[in-house]
Amino acid sequence: MSNLRPESMQRITTKALADAFIAEQIEVLRNKIGDKKVLLALSGGVDSSVCAALLIKAVGSKLVCVHVNHGLLRKGEPEQVIEVFRNQMKANLVYVDAVDRFLDKLAGVSDPETKRKIIGAEFIRVFEEEARKLDGISFLGQGTIYPDILESEKGVKAHHNVGGLPEDLKFELVEPVKLLYKDEVRVVGEALGLPKNMVYRQPFPGPGLGVRCLGAITRDRLEMVRESDAILREEFANAGLEGKVWQYFTIVPELRSTGIENGNRTYAYPVIIRAVNTRDAMTATIEEIPYSLLNKIVMRITGEVKGVNRVVYDLTPKPCGTIEWE
Amino acid sequence: MSNLRPESMQRITTKALADAFIAEQIEVLRNKIGDKKVLLALSGGVDSSVCAALLIKAVGSKLVCVHVNHGLLRKGEPEQVIEVFRNQMKANLVYVDAVDRFLDKLAGVSDPETKRKIIGAEFIRVFEEEARKLDGISFLGQGTIYPDILESEKGVKAHHNVGGLPEDLKFELVEPVKLLYKDEVRVVGEALGLPKNMVYRQPFPGPGLGVRCLGAITRDRLEMVRESDAILREEFANAGLEGKVWQYFTIVPELRSTGIENGNRTYAYPVIIRAVNTRDAMTATIEEIPYSLLNKIVMRITGEVKGVNRVVYDLTPKPCGTIEWE
Repeated sequence: MSNLRPESMQRITTKALADAFIAEQIEVLRNKIGDKKVLLALSGGVDSSVCAALLIKAVGSKLVCVHVNHGLLRKGEPEQVIEVFRNQMKANLVYVDAVDRFLDKLAGVSDPETKRKIIGAEFIRVFEEEARKLDGISFLGQGTIYPDILESEKGVKAHHNVGGLPEDLKFELVEPVKLLYKDEVRVVGEALGLPKNMVYRQPFPGPGLGVRCLGAITRDRLEMVRESDAILREEFANAGLEGKVWQYFTIVPELRSTGIENGNRTYAYPVIIRAVNTRDAMTATIEEIPYSLLNKIVMRITGEVKGVNRVVYDLTPKPCGTIEWE
Repeated sequence: MSNLRPESMQRITTKALADAFIAEQIEVLRNKIGDKKVLLALSGGVDSSVCAALLIKAVGSKLVCVHVNHGLLRKGEPEQVIEVFRNQMKANLVYVDAVDRFLDKLAGVSDPETKRKIIGAEFIRVFEEEARKLDGISFLGQGTIYPDILESEKGVKAHHNVGGLPEDLKFELVEPVKLLYKDEVRVVGEALGLPKNMVYRQPFPGPGLGVRCLGAITRDRLEMVRESDAILREEFANAGLEGKVWQYFTIVPELRSTGIENGNRTYAYPVIIRAVNTRDAMTATIEEIPYSLLNKIVMRITGEVKGVNRVVYDLTPKPCGTIEWE
């Protein structure tokens, strides 16, 4: 399989086309892998989930999925990975609870670039440790998709999700969706029986909620990000905005303000709502959320999330703001 | 003049009633003051401005107004005080440029209560110094209004704007508007010929923009507050919201985020917009500013105010937020 998409390749837009692609890939994967073992870092994002589901269909328990919970995932995500892959698809899933390990490493680190580096490096280390525990792994599965390939070709980004492994762990790569565009990955994911909310999941940054808990990450503020994000997603879903708004999430800065509760002064954190629409992620406009919905979200977040006394809405388009704050 | 408003006193709602009140007060003030001198701290707010205008009508240059520019006033305010009182009303106005003095004292001070105390104490000191330069002052004019009296009676707040002066400077008080409600003060102010934007000025906290430049005040962030506030007021006026929305202003926190400008990364401050409506200031709801207007304000603030790359809108009602952030 070359790194360039053949011009003859039809865009996968229907279940029938997806089924044909899946059948073809199962053949290719079985021929390639044979009796050997494949290792895959399963984040729970669309790409790695579709890649995992394809490999499970092709080689079953010869795929070992490693899900690293670094404590920076959205509410319910680790649970869903276990439910879908271990319970429903009967995958060979290693679940690693590395929450304390990551949060301890990140304690007191406020520089965004350093935070990202720590999260990335620690992820490699945890994955490496798990890989060393396993015997006879020959392949490394990766949910690389076609835009990643194109960006790598242009030299924009190195898109090896698990790049940085030591030489003796450089397995041969298996990248079954590397010629697919994002929309095709979703169609294939649906055909593979993955849940809709997993297949149509919003884009989520590699360092997860870590870049939305601004500055030095603390467990209490991280929990505010996770809980407020869950409320925002729930209310957007209730209002029929799920899948219509490109990306929406919450941020908690390292900043408190006065407030009042039952006549007493509070000194607590604001939650920042971000909700944007974009075609190419190079420019973005804000979603004009109706005030009635905003009001409901504000009431729920300030009422249900401990340590929060304000909610603000980020009105900044890209440019001059970026979509994330750090 | 007693401290309690007589039940027989008619609410001043028309120019004719205001003129009658003004004529009566001119008599009272002239009889009380005679050939003596009155000192007044003129902030440029509604109450002290109306008080000053009344005293100018009554005793002319026997009133000495002291306007202390502590660097925390809104854009154009010190200039307007000079224009209206010195140039138009020919008042005896002492203008004190104390900007450096205040900002130097406040440098590095991040605790809100300490900031307020420094601003209050420094104001007394500057005013005292000016008072000592003047000879033969017998009276201290004050723009106390009736709600201030009621709150003092209830023990809620001590409302002596220039309380804290040393014993030897405790002049006899002259408080010509102390039986008036806020709306009456405005009607009287208009009858006295004060500019509408001065008479219908929004409430403004004593420590000024100092509590809207969150944390330790810096000159650059203070300028961001002042410039963004001026843009907000201008755009609200253009949209016909001036006088309709109870209070609106901007805040700049001690917090930066990434952004993008001409393809380059920026790391700059957000401006927080606050716009609330209230009847009694005990509870408040946010103004539902149309997105078309918000968008215009965002474009202007991010385009015109140096050091700003984002704008957010505070969606929090009171409770659980307060109107100001610190």
